[in-house]
Amino acid sequence: MPQFKAPTRDIKFAINEVLNSEALYQTLPGCEEATQDIINAIIDEGAKFAEEVVAPLYQSGDEEGCTWSEDGVKTPAGFADAYRQYVENGWPALSADPTYGGQGLPNMLGIVMNELAGTANWAWLMYPGLSHGAIHTVEEHGDEQQKQHYLTKMISGEWTGTMCLTESHCGSDLGLLRTKAEPQADGSYAITGTKIFISAGEHDMAENIVHIVLARLPDAPEGTKGISLFIVPKFDVTADGGIGERNAVHCASIEEKMGIHGNATCVLNFDGARGYLIGPPNKGLNAMFTFMNTARIGTAIQGLAHTELSFQGALSYAKERLAMRSLTGPKNPDGPADPIIVHPDVRRMLLTQKAIAEGARVFLYYLAQLGDVVQCGDAESAKKADDLMALLTPIAKAFTTELGYECSNLGVQVYGGHGFIREWGMEQIVRDCRISMLYEGTTGIQALDLLGRKVLGSGGKLLLEFTGLIDELCEQHSGPEMAEFIEPLKAAKDEWLEVSMKLGEAAMENPDNAGAAAVDYMMYSGYVTFAYFWARMAAVAQARIAQGGEDMSFYEAKIITARFYFDKLLPRTRTLKETMLSGADTLMEMPEALFIV
Amino acid sequence: MPQFKAPTRDIKFAINEVLNSEALYQTLPGCEEATQDIINAIIDEGAKFAEEVVAPLYQSGDEEGCTWSEDGVKTPAGFADAYRQYVENGWPALSADPTYGGQGLPNMLGIVMNELAGTANWAWLMYPGLSHGAIHTVEEHGDEQQKQHYLTKMISGEWTGTMCLTESHCGSDLGLLRTKAEPQADGSYAITGTKIFISAGEHDMAENIVHIVLARLPDAPEGTKGISLFIVPKFDVTADGGIGERNAVHCASIEEKMGIHGNATCVLNFDGARGYLIGPPNKGLNAMFTFMNTARIGTAIQGLAHTELSFQGALSYAKERLAMRSLTGPKNPDGPADPIIVHPDVRRMLLTQKAIAEGARVFLYYLAQLGDVVQCGDAESAKKADDLMALLTPIAKAFTTELGYECSNLGVQVYGGHGFIREWGMEQIVRDCRISMLYEGTTGIQALDLLGRKVLGSGGKLLLEFTGLIDELCEQHSGPEMAEFIEPLKAAKDEWLEVSMKLGEAAMENPDNAGAAAVDYMMYSGYVTFAYFWARMAAVAQARIAQGGEDMSFYEAKIITARFYFDKLLPRTRTLKETMLSGADTLMEMPEALFIV
Repeated sequence: MPQFKAPTRDIKFAINEVLNSEALYQTLPGCEEATQDIINAIIDEGAKFAEEVVAPLYQSGDEEGCTWSEDGVKTPAGFADAYRQYVENGWPALSADPTYGGQGLPNMLGIVMNELAGTANWAWLMYPGLSHGAIHTVEEHGDEQQKQHYLTKMISGEWTGTMCLTESHCGSDLGLLRTKAEPQADGSYAITGTKIFISAGEHDMAENIVHIVLARLPDAPEGTKGISLFIVPKFDVTADGGIGERNAVHCASIEEKMGIHGNATCVLNFDGARGYLIGPPNKGLNAMFTFMNTARIGTAIQGLAHTELSFQGALSYAKERLAMRSLTGPKNPDGPADPIIVHPDVRRMLLTQKAIAEGARVFLYYLAQLGDVVQCGDAESAKKADDLMALLTPIAKAFTTELGYECSNLGVQVYGGHGFIREWGMEQIVRDCRISMLYEGTTGIQALDLLGRKVLGSGGKLLLEFTGLIDELCEQHSGPEMAEFIEPLKAAKDEWLEVSMKLGEAAMENPDNAGAAAVDYMMYSGYVTFAYFWARMAAVAQARIAQGGEDMSFYEAKIITARFYFDKLLPRTRTLKETMLSGADTLMEMPEALFIV
Repeated sequence: MPQFKAPTRDIKFAINEVLNSEALYQTLPGCEEATQDIINAIIDEGAKFAEEVVAPLYQSGDEEGCTWSEDGVKTPAGFADAYRQYVENGWPALSADPTYGGQGLPNMLGIVMNELAGTANWAWLMYPGLSHGAIHTVEEHGDEQQKQHYLTKMISGEWTGTMCLTESHCGSDLGLLRTKAEPQADGSYAITGTKIFISAGEHDMAENIVHIVLARLPDAPEGTKGISLFIVPKFDVTADGGIGERNAVHCASIEEKMGIHGNATCVLNFDGARGYLIGPPNKGLNAMFTFMNTARIGTAIQGLAHTELSFQGALSYAKERLAMRSLTGPKNPDGPADPIIVHPDVRRMLLTQKAIAEGARVFLYYLAQLGDVVQCGDAESAKKADDLMALLTPIAKAFTTELGYECSNLGVQVYGGHGFIREWGMEQIVRDCRISMLYEGTTGIQALDLLGRKVLGSGGKLLLEFTGLIDELCEQHSGPEMAEFIEPLKAAKDEWLEVSMKLGEAAMENPDNAGAAAVDYMMYSGYVTFAYFWARMAAVAQARIAQGGEDMSFYEAKIITARFYFDKLLPRTRTLKETMLSGADTLMEMPEALFIV
């Protein structure tokens, strides 16, 4: 089983050295408390919690899984206790609104904590993790009483929250949903319908669960324009905010899944359950979009988490396992064979994991930081940050999880046959990771969002915002010492603009050309985006080495990894460019009737 | 759960129309019985068995798994009965030596049966499948008494066989193995050691199990040159070939694995077990190589099998599941949404699966046919076939399983969140498939074999044998109607030769350059190889369409799929070319001490 070690050095590098977070947060009203000292203290405390409290439940949680009975869902041994400690330590309140009991720290730090606990144990993290969506919804759209009743309890962690969107016949296409909300005389609504795939929908960790439910009012228009949002608590809330009557929402069953066995994926039956409208009627889907970006960054973190954990497991094995001799002569002449880390192909796998984990870390923290600017910055910088987030979030979600899955599988591959055996814990990472490309919008959905809505939909404007930052970086580092990174980055950026333009033209001719290119375009965009962040990291590392001092080997490793990224991963754009520009013809030509076995 | 339908039409197309098998087998002494009628009858019977007997145990076998006790291993309900029917129908004897009870049909038909039963239920197929290695070993290297005692019973299927190679500290590097064989006064050997990962090493399907065990004699040289082969039966055999005493080989435990739960992966303890030397002392590894190619084709079939099953599941879902509207306007205007098969990205996934399954099918049957030529052809054609097999087998094993895993995952992706749920059966395909890239030589090992031993080791000779066939095809189809396939195939072939040459030079400079390029080179070679077979299929389909007649839609679908392959999959060589030629520097530069968390 991979012994999780929190990568605090790299987290601090990303936050403090690459993203200069203290400097930023000193300029953001309400974020000033996030000094470097505070940031580092939170990273260290979070690391301790992740390593000591939740990591030990990683494998046992998978083996035991959740158990359903008529009385509810029992989570794996230790999960509820770990959650109790999490609440006692105040983690749920970390980045929440101080008015309702939060600590008011930047949301980025919440993301860091998600990474730490999620790398240690993703299935466990999902219980507190799912509350975020509910918290944001009530924060943004709830009335004062709803905030007093629900928000305070979710921020303290006493209660958890869920998001109830999916029904068995619709996930990507929420316009088809059927759950009904009937107005009642007292102003509440009777909610009736069945929701599926509700993560953390029922459990034994908290005394109440606040479900945010998408449903239709009786007179609602069809499709996505007729969806409203409701708060449906597991236990109704008394006038003074206490636990009231058991509501008519029940977990009918939990799913048997490929992975994340420690998390309960629930079928929830609403049988005329008491619900409270939140936000304006028929505007539910709009309301959802307000925190969709945050939720997607949360899922992107899963790709990073599994890459990191798989890398850690693979690295320790590669140093210990002896097999064959190096092609350039024995490196461990006194042993019966060399450790497999001497073999170029094993290094290819390890470096891929390392490059993706570290690239994703800076990228996702950067995105989270943009979220803080949107929330706390002045109008102009908030607008710009919002634009960048709109563009980068689908890339973050889809690209990081796709690469996270590849990297989880590389970890298995480094172990050879042992990787397939449960005891080693490597295959669990693959099983846990697989869901990340599916939920919170599949890769295909993200790709359509990126190419269709964000890039073409903005007439290229959002893309130019980001390539403008790439240009700035290239100008800042135009000297020969950074040329090995800046030149290919510049070329990739130019080509990114060029293919975007061409796809715009192709989509005008035939919209299916955009659908055909979308996933390749998203992946392409991901490789260029990571190239930008790797160049930024390399620049910081070069500067540190030029200054001299301690910890030089950390910076040297950074530069070598950047070099690997540009040499072996960025060239993946070569194929993607070709396939995305060759259009939809060979995809659409096959008549459906010929698609048979 | 995917309802398996045996793809008999496509199997017959590959065997009869593309590979002209009857014509070939009429020229091979001992294979003349394999007329088209016999071939078709076997395909139809095999299809029936696979659909009716083993497919229904696919999901239940995964859920129930195997159970270990001191008395042995219990296989999932129905497995033993299915095996009994398999034996009663004479399937184990299909392509075995008639002298010992076999039916003497070409080995290719055995591979077809493996595909059929393996697509229906890979975990089940492994029980009879693993016998092949043992059968080949005794056939090739056993003395007459060993053949009478063991071969006849394995060919009839009354007994099964295993291959006991791996030990906990060595798999890829068998030179490190430690199991000992001490000569006894009666000419037998006392075998002592522990073997792991022994598939079908213990079960309740047959009355005896014949283990072929790799072990060291007391005076054996170190490394791979000191390995000998032994027959170690679970029950010793009496002078008249009956069941004798229980031997000192016991299953200590079975592994908990990611997939293939229906197959028992055993730890076998040999405690001075009675063994019989087979073949000359210290030449065990050489003896293994004689059937390694066959075993690797057997594993390559797993990539095809899972691709086909996943495709079938995804296709039926894509036609039924409604979500969103086509980008070019509603295709199902009376329904609430369009079936997802209208979306280009869903088609991209389905066509990838279809192109890989059908390409792999022809490729692997072709390889199996080469094996028949090696066995039954005249010296000259046998030599040529052997050369081609040597080159193509590592590609078949590594490329088909890597693509099989990608395609298994695409099947999950088409299902969205439902793909992650066990009930649908799609995630099981991924879990079952994952082992295929690990056992029987990992992808990395196959890639080194291909580039190091086969291509560079033969000075390019083996590669030129195959590209000669590509040249022939290109000359045969130099007209405009095949130009869309022949031109890119020719270019890919030229480039394949060019990069091989360059890698030869790079490897002379530094052997690590070969190690760094090996996996990319293997994948590159796979895409070109599949392009060759897709061009062959397209040529046949074009000819059939030109003739006119029935079944035109089958041939049209073939041509459209070929077009898709050349348009969207062959361009993956673009990236591979770049990364394989950029050398080992960025892989080897990182000092091991800097590889830390």
